[in-house]
Amino acid sequence: MKATVYHAKGDVRVEHVPDPSIDESTDAIVRVTHACICGSDLWFYRGEAKWEEGWRTGHELMGIVEEVGSDVSSLKAGDRVFAPFSFSDGTCEFCRKGVQTSCVHGGFWGGADNDGGQGEAVRAPFAEATLVKIPDAASNDEALLARILPLTDVMGTGHHAAISAGVGMGSTVAIIGDGAVGLCGVLAAKRLGAERIIMFGRHPDRLALASRFGASESVTERGEEAIARALEMTGGGPECVLECVGNSESMEMASGMARPAGAIGYVGVPYGSLRGLNLRRMFSENIALRGGVAPVRAYADELLVDVLAGKLDASPVFDLTVGLDDVPQGYAAMDGRSAIKVLVRL
Amino acid sequence: MKATVYHAKGDVRVEHVPDPSIDESTDAIVRVTHACICGSDLWFYRGEAKWEEGWRTGHELMGIVEEVGSDVSSLKAGDRVFAPFSFSDGTCEFCRKGVQTSCVHGGFWGGADNDGGQGEAVRAPFAEATLVKIPDAASNDEALLARILPLTDVMGTGHHAAISAGVGMGSTVAIIGDGAVGLCGVLAAKRLGAERIIMFGRHPDRLALASRFGASESVTERGEEAIARALEMTGGGPECVLECVGNSESMEMASGMARPAGAIGYVGVPYGSLRGLNLRRMFSENIALRGGVAPVRAYADELLVDVLAGKLDASPVFDLTVGLDDVPQGYAAMDGRSAIKVLVRL
Repeated sequence: MKATVYHAKGDVRVEHVPDPSIDESTDAIVRVTHACICGSDLWFYRGEAKWEEGWRTGHELMGIVEEVGSDVSSLKAGDRVFAPFSFSDGTCEFCRKGVQTSCVHGGFWGGADNDGGQGEAVRAPFAEATLVKIPDAASNDEALLARILPLTDVMGTGHHAAISAGVGMGSTVAIIGDGAVGLCGVLAAKRLGAERIIMFGRHPDRLALASRFGASESVTERGEEAIARALEMTGGGPECVLECVGNSESMEMASGMARPAGAIGYVGVPYGSLRGLNLRRMFSENIALRGGVAPVRAYADELLVDVLAGKLDASPVFDLTVGLDDVPQGYAAMDGRSAIKVLVRL
Repeated sequence: MKATVYHAKGDVRVEHVPDPSIDESTDAIVRVTHACICGSDLWFYRGEAKWEEGWRTGHELMGIVEEVGSDVSSLKAGDRVFAPFSFSDGTCEFCRKGVQTSCVHGGFWGGADNDGGQGEAVRAPFAEATLVKIPDAASNDEALLARILPLTDVMGTGHHAAISAGVGMGSTVAIIGDGAVGLCGVLAAKRLGAERIIMFGRHPDRLALASRFGASESVTERGEEAIARALEMTGGGPECVLECVGNSESMEMASGMARPAGAIGYVGVPYGSLRGLNLRRMFSENIALRGGVAPVRAYADELLVDVLAGKLDASPVFDLTVGLDDVPQGYAAMDGRSAIKVLVRL
């Protein structure tokens, strides 16, 4: 089969790789029909995460079950499914606690050992626990599938940021980062009842989308100026801050603006962000830091209900669609910020 | 009156200072009968916090109301009271949220502008909100007063660490730091229903006290070795970690050992601790960082009930009692770790 392979900084290629096979009785083979390119893929693409030549890429995928292992009974060939960006056994302590990303037998798509989403098919470990079945009635509705696809990562991650930041009815919320996750954070905060949502970003098109998603205001300043603006606009800071970038500046902003007794929900993979964290202020004002890699499997069923009911639509974050062979161009578009998020339609 | 004044690193002196007076109608004058020396006082004593010559010291105090302002009606001369380490108006947004340490009109005892606890008397701002009245029946029971005195800081702070770390019935808890706050953390965790309490410290006398307070085990290793021990003893880490030191090593230990989906409750004033924080692990495993300067006023009434009922006694943390004139010797004893915590009896 064909799949995307990392070679070097700025160099991913679509190549022939071995077909997946059922290795364990709990596996399924999924033929990928939809995948994405993620903002977090840019970390290795830009050489900021240590990746090795030959590793497979892509962790957001939807497809059709082709074959199941002998211990898989709740799924069958032909089922439309999607997968969160990590697989998990569904039975360990952490899966039961809803942090499937810490599953003791789990892992992440792609890399050295697993098939990646940006390829024709994957071996899906722990298929019953990992894969989320899409109802048959929805399984060929292309527009609906595009609305479900963000549940593989960005919508679940934005939701995790909002939950971690304690967003509830009437909350005042700051969202740092106008990428796909930040934009999904707007949808999540709105859905959870936030009264005021302030988006911190710099791209007019993304801020326009944030507004369409429910952001009440936007701020284009950065760093200290952004903090000053946030404190002024909210009379002392927003009580919930969704940190959706993961660098030093975004952590500085989040920890500098959160309201006393408030919380930062952070979901941006932290690269060098420790330097920016204003721990003294967080300590003085009892500001919590919660979140991390999003257990999107925990949220998938609940969010899917709302997507199917027409109440949640993050699909506008996809502003470029490519075929599998054009995945490298998709990376370049995201790297150059000419695309917010790329949908790969196989 | 006489009060303790900071002069330089390692140099505090008891000197004559102006008597306090009622400046605002909401003030009270409290004649101090009991005070403490705090582990956090050592930060300026050791020159690690920026302090200026002439600043007043001490933030834990109990005493007798001598005079009240015209707007104080719930307290009267002769009442026995204690004060948390910060004063607060009791009415602002943050006081109502239970984070009186962030009170918009509040502040801390001592320093450049306020009377300190280590002196003969204080002007107590917002007396009705700040001061906690001790029932008359208890007000001359010296042993009972020594059990109440830790509510001014260390017992409330240990409780805040436990609450912030999410301690509840059946919890497995690690406590990092065998100082007075860590020891109070043991009492707090036990009181909240923890099943297993592991104390990380190095002083045999303090570990013995931790055991008496309810710790089930103790670990004397530090750093990476302590982390390895914690992970091994608990099969993957304790879900609640009370960080009661505030330096780089203690933060490294806390963030290295907390169980996935667990929480660190940190109450050690963070000096340089950011370097130690393992944010990558916290992110990967969804470990929360909560806590900060403890709003001990918020906990005072609840904890006082248990102290009066004989169910909570942190007074064994006081292992040295001095008079006001001997406060400098008390600092030296704490600095040299020959005392866990000093009670100042005026």
